[in-house]
Amino acid sequence: MAVYTHLGAEEMAALIARFDVGTLVSAKGIAEGVSNSNWLLETTGSDGAGARFILTMYEFRIELEDLPYFLSLLDHLAAKGCPVPRTIHDREGNLYVTRPGPSGDKALALIEYLPGVSVSTPTAGQARAVGAELARLHLAAGDFPASRANGMGVAEWQRLASACGAEGLARINPELAAIVAHELPRLISSWPTGLPTGVIHADLFPDNVLMLGDKVTGLIDFYFACNDILAYDLAVTHVAWCFDKRDSFRADVSAALIEGYEGVRLLGAEERAALPLLGQGAAMRFAMSRAWDWLNTPADALVTPKDPMSPARRLGFYKANPEVFA
Amino acid sequence: MAVYTHLGAEEMAALIARFDVGTLVSAKGIAEGVSNSNWLLETTGSDGAGARFILTMYEFRIELEDLPYFLSLLDHLAAKGCPVPRTIHDREGNLYVTRPGPSGDKALALIEYLPGVSVSTPTAGQARAVGAELARLHLAAGDFPASRANGMGVAEWQRLASACGAEGLARINPELAAIVAHELPRLISSWPTGLPTGVIHADLFPDNVLMLGDKVTGLIDFYFACNDILAYDLAVTHVAWCFDKRDSFRADVSAALIEGYEGVRLLGAEERAALPLLGQGAAMRFAMSRAWDWLNTPADALVTPKDPMSPARRLGFYKANPEVFA
Repeated sequence: MAVYTHLGAEEMAALIARFDVGTLVSAKGIAEGVSNSNWLLETTGSDGAGARFILTMYEFRIELEDLPYFLSLLDHLAAKGCPVPRTIHDREGNLYVTRPGPSGDKALALIEYLPGVSVSTPTAGQARAVGAELARLHLAAGDFPASRANGMGVAEWQRLASACGAEGLARINPELAAIVAHELPRLISSWPTGLPTGVIHADLFPDNVLMLGDKVTGLIDFYFACNDILAYDLAVTHVAWCFDKRDSFRADVSAALIEGYEGVRLLGAEERAALPLLGQGAAMRFAMSRAWDWLNTPADALVTPKDPMSPARRLGFYKANPEVFA
Repeated sequence: MAVYTHLGAEEMAALIARFDVGTLVSAKGIAEGVSNSNWLLETTGSDGAGARFILTMYEFRIELEDLPYFLSLLDHLAAKGCPVPRTIHDREGNLYVTRPGPSGDKALALIEYLPGVSVSTPTAGQARAVGAELARLHLAAGDFPASRANGMGVAEWQRLASACGAEGLARINPELAAIVAHELPRLISSWPTGLPTGVIHADLFPDNVLMLGDKVTGLIDFYFACNDILAYDLAVTHVAWCFDKRDSFRADVSAALIEGYEGVRLLGAEERAALPLLGQGAAMRFAMSRAWDWLNTPADALVTPKDPMSPARRLGFYKANPEVFA
């Protein structure tokens, strides 16, 4: 949640000149993204009518080789009518530009600005709309030619659990260590194969959805997008949307999310049968990444690490209540 | 440089409903301000034509009792045509609203959004424009009824120097400790009295000026504004604008800044004669506040503290070259 690199007006103007978007009118560093710096830009627009964009500088973590996947996916989905921000290509047609810096070249991408706000407590109507957009995304990406492995898949949960160590997990919460010890081996050994795969968002929390009322105006932050089990993406979205802040299950929101999804893309019998396990896996994925962040965030950092116990409790709910997916 | 408080869409919408600005279309936390959280908001506008605002939540440091001074000053200056953001009053006419929170009530103010970007390396033309706007601000505030003491005045430099201690200052740079030991007592004992006073911005660095080309579109961040010597405000602006990144004096920018100021408000003979000393004082003020921040910022904080040696070197330049103000 920060802007890591200072870009003065002169440098920002020079960067913007590499795109056909008019001249710079305003630039505000925005507090989004933990591994990149972001600015909300206003320009005169290529037609002089004014336009807004998000400029992202990739600071850490994301491999430059993955950028074309993320950015061309946005182009692909936007062209099919999905509410995702288009990538603005530079004057030479490139998906991103690079800027030399003291610690090496950094990549910058310019994407469309979309209206909308992220809800904290989704209504059933909002969950239904998100389910439908997720299914549309899955269908629209069906002919996307590129592929990317899921860097946060089953093997990574295991790696993160080992990196935290049983003592580290117990330091967060003894219950967390017990859950990982019992559930992780079971999830790994029973993880489904043969289910329909495709491009998934893989991180569709409410923070990554812009809405106006019940309408989805933007699906954003595709930096975990990859090729994996489609129904797993629905499970990730389910973990993210269908519980309240105290991790109590919200049955109406759950039903609406799945109905919304199935209104666009029907789940096969195997997919539906796998959802309880996929939900547990999705919960484990966030429990493990949060546990690692929890143990590796300096105590005085401005960012408060997210509680790994929240997804861990949701995992327990899925295990005890598979019928919510029936 | 962060957003300290999370405001979900629902809560943001409820806050916005307390103002006559239409409904929420977008809200982005922006990476500005170290003692408050800021959002760039888009709404449908009171007339449906769309409008943008900055929402500020006051988190630390600023005393609630000072807020009316800052916010009504913006109103006063905007009404006189100064390029400052208007304060948007709530439906009951209040300058700000309060929100209950776990650590007590917090105040939030909604101000106008202004276009423009902050330059890194000002041109003489830009400095001339800023000088003129600073003088217009001084004149426009001439009949502002409220008053506020300068919390970063001479007494505070002394307090900060003592709080850092000679060893603390020497740890930053032995030269800094020597400069403070030699120059601070002299500045305090010779600090001018009897010069014209009024409302001053007191922190008009390029970061706090929005520009489009040579035009000033916004003077922002009035949270150090106070009543003090008018020519001291010009001296602060001079320290902030008339040196390059290596602290070399930029004669053309200096001449343009002062000419721009005097094109609107002529300096009296005593004011002009005092400028070398006022410049040294302004440099000392930033050297001391930065020294304190330097010694009190955690090593792993996201914010890089600013170098106190930069204003300290500028202080030395003013002492050695009083003729630049002749």
